[in-house]
Amino acid sequence: MPQSYAPLQAPHRLLFGPGPSMVAPRVYQAMSQPVVGHLDPFFFQTVEEVRALLGYAYSTSNQFNIAVSGTGTSGMEAAVANFTEAGDKFALFTNGFFGDRIGEMARRHGAQLVTHSKPWGEPYDPQEAREFIRRERPRIVAVVQAETSTGMYNQTQAICEAAHEVDAVTIVDCVTSLGGMPVLVDQNGIDIAYSCSQKGLGCPPGLSPMTVSPRALERLKARKSPVESFYLDLQLLDGFYTGHKYHHTASATMFYAIREGLAIVAEEGLEARWERHRLNHEAFVAGIEAMGLRMHVAQGDRLWTLNTPCVPAGVDDAKVRQFLLEKYSMEIAGGFGPLAGKVFRIGTMGYSSTAENVQLILQALADAIRHAS
Amino acid sequence: MPQSYAPLQAPHRLLFGPGPSMVAPRVYQAMSQPVVGHLDPFFFQTVEEVRALLGYAYSTSNQFNIAVSGTGTSGMEAAVANFTEAGDKFALFTNGFFGDRIGEMARRHGAQLVTHSKPWGEPYDPQEAREFIRRERPRIVAVVQAETSTGMYNQTQAICEAAHEVDAVTIVDCVTSLGGMPVLVDQNGIDIAYSCSQKGLGCPPGLSPMTVSPRALERLKARKSPVESFYLDLQLLDGFYTGHKYHHTASATMFYAIREGLAIVAEEGLEARWERHRLNHEAFVAGIEAMGLRMHVAQGDRLWTLNTPCVPAGVDDAKVRQFLLEKYSMEIAGGFGPLAGKVFRIGTMGYSSTAENVQLILQALADAIRHAS
Repeated sequence: MPQSYAPLQAPHRLLFGPGPSMVAPRVYQAMSQPVVGHLDPFFFQTVEEVRALLGYAYSTSNQFNIAVSGTGTSGMEAAVANFTEAGDKFALFTNGFFGDRIGEMARRHGAQLVTHSKPWGEPYDPQEAREFIRRERPRIVAVVQAETSTGMYNQTQAICEAAHEVDAVTIVDCVTSLGGMPVLVDQNGIDIAYSCSQKGLGCPPGLSPMTVSPRALERLKARKSPVESFYLDLQLLDGFYTGHKYHHTASATMFYAIREGLAIVAEEGLEARWERHRLNHEAFVAGIEAMGLRMHVAQGDRLWTLNTPCVPAGVDDAKVRQFLLEKYSMEIAGGFGPLAGKVFRIGTMGYSSTAENVQLILQALADAIRHAS
Repeated sequence: MPQSYAPLQAPHRLLFGPGPSMVAPRVYQAMSQPVVGHLDPFFFQTVEEVRALLGYAYSTSNQFNIAVSGTGTSGMEAAVANFTEAGDKFALFTNGFFGDRIGEMARRHGAQLVTHSKPWGEPYDPQEAREFIRRERPRIVAVVQAETSTGMYNQTQAICEAAHEVDAVTIVDCVTSLGGMPVLVDQNGIDIAYSCSQKGLGCPPGLSPMTVSPRALERLKARKSPVESFYLDLQLLDGFYTGHKYHHTASATMFYAIREGLAIVAEEGLEARWERHRLNHEAFVAGIEAMGLRMHVAQGDRLWTLNTPCVPAGVDDAKVRQFLLEKYSMEIAGGFGPLAGKVFRIGTMGYSSTAENVQLILQALADAIRHAS
């Protein structure tokens, strides 16, 4: 160096993995708008638009709706770090990789962890869940609503109700539900929800939209020790986004993207958007079953955003994925942990959830399975 | 909702604050390239390009050159969190806001903090610094190379040398130096450096480029306790970027941006780029002094990227900034802490550092000061 570098040229991928999903042209256009400073009046105007639009997308009357400057994993860590103090009893419900990850974070942040677990992709029994919480009487209860590792939608209402009986706050992972299926923060009794920008909202990765209930904010204010993470300290973040006091250099570009993604959600309307996701998911399942494959998760418990058909006997899932990438420039994902080699993880979410894409995936997948058998 | 939202239209700002600086058209073009997944071969190819280009920009032979998925503040926290264990003696050199912030983080992460401080904008005496380190014998030594709150460049070589004598690792904040003036990681004996995307590199905010020396990596491997932050755990991040094992959904879009910003640095050549920043900084200072203003930081200690002229007596700096924003759509910043109301902070960095911009700033600033007197 110095030497010449050709401008970056990325391949056009058909993104049907567990995220990122494909990005709407309007979102790309928003990101090409000129950057403004993180204390600019226009930036804070955008922050307020995002606050209102997030309230709608999360179905909540909460006012604490912000986007953390990181990916969904930073939202998970913000939730755990802010609501856990050393020695707190933390009740975790887990039936997948991301549930387990919450537990890993809770341990790192000094929690006394108690776990109610089910095999990956099996539902919780509401009565069992209630009894677990009543017996353990934790200060924090965490559960994943949309488990990206298994394609499962966990019902959270009974868990949150029981948590509130014992005065616990509830943390719910909505990374793969927001913008694609009902999250219903207020109706479900969720105190702290976090998600990401790159799945149901159809933006690039880089922000973690969160919402926090007034009762959880009271808990924050009553902390005895500072949050270990300065970067993810929600009270400092509120001081920045609401009080306009400098904390970090939030990215105007990423806020433009999520504002646009959320505006698209509001224009479509949540119910219509959920219905679109449901119909395309059902068409996908019908196609999969017509091919003689079966779904890993039972009907009624399935995510509409992320589908997990089982890998047929005698098929190497890695070969299928390689073939799809090479022949179709199409990304799907495999399973991991106990589901490694056993399921495909195929996203139909956000801008990517269309009838045409479902047909395209099914046809390509059939071709790939023939090839890899 | 549903209701219609006009596509986002951001104002065109002339960004001459402490960052973000203006973004090169080529970087915007890179960000409009299609998103790929965080496990896509093209993503990892981009990660390797960024690794090599960061090694060049940081003037280091380190191989651990990664971009953390957050802003510069996340890089600061990654540095502090990964290299501090509870009870570790942490020696902080501070003469500004960001030095103080490192101390705040070190306390949160359980360090036994010892501080050598100077008034904001005054240099450290190398002999005093050495004696402080030899006396305290810390495990970690931290100092800000380019102090964004004061416009000061701190010499770090004597500090790093003394730190190595007592077997400490050295953390150096290069947020406002990388891409604009010499960082010289290897020559200065810096073990852990972090920076941001939106200043000297001319990209939007959202990534924190870091480099870590082999001896600091040994320290990481010898940790007795896990890093509290899962999101910022550098060994997990290395497992992802080098080992291709999933950790979080890094943003292809932001990596496209920083690849392009770093390619522009390499094409210009570091020495030529530094010289451009130096000349434009000196032209700015000459203009400021011709207006009868003086600089806060002594000659020879000044950043070339961020200039801090003193606010003249009788001038309200907030009025000046408001006038510039309204009449010129121009952003500059004020001081804070002990420098509130006393200095302007005016960036000439990255793509924004041109002779034409210097003339434009000087003319607009003279107009604004007349108006606000």
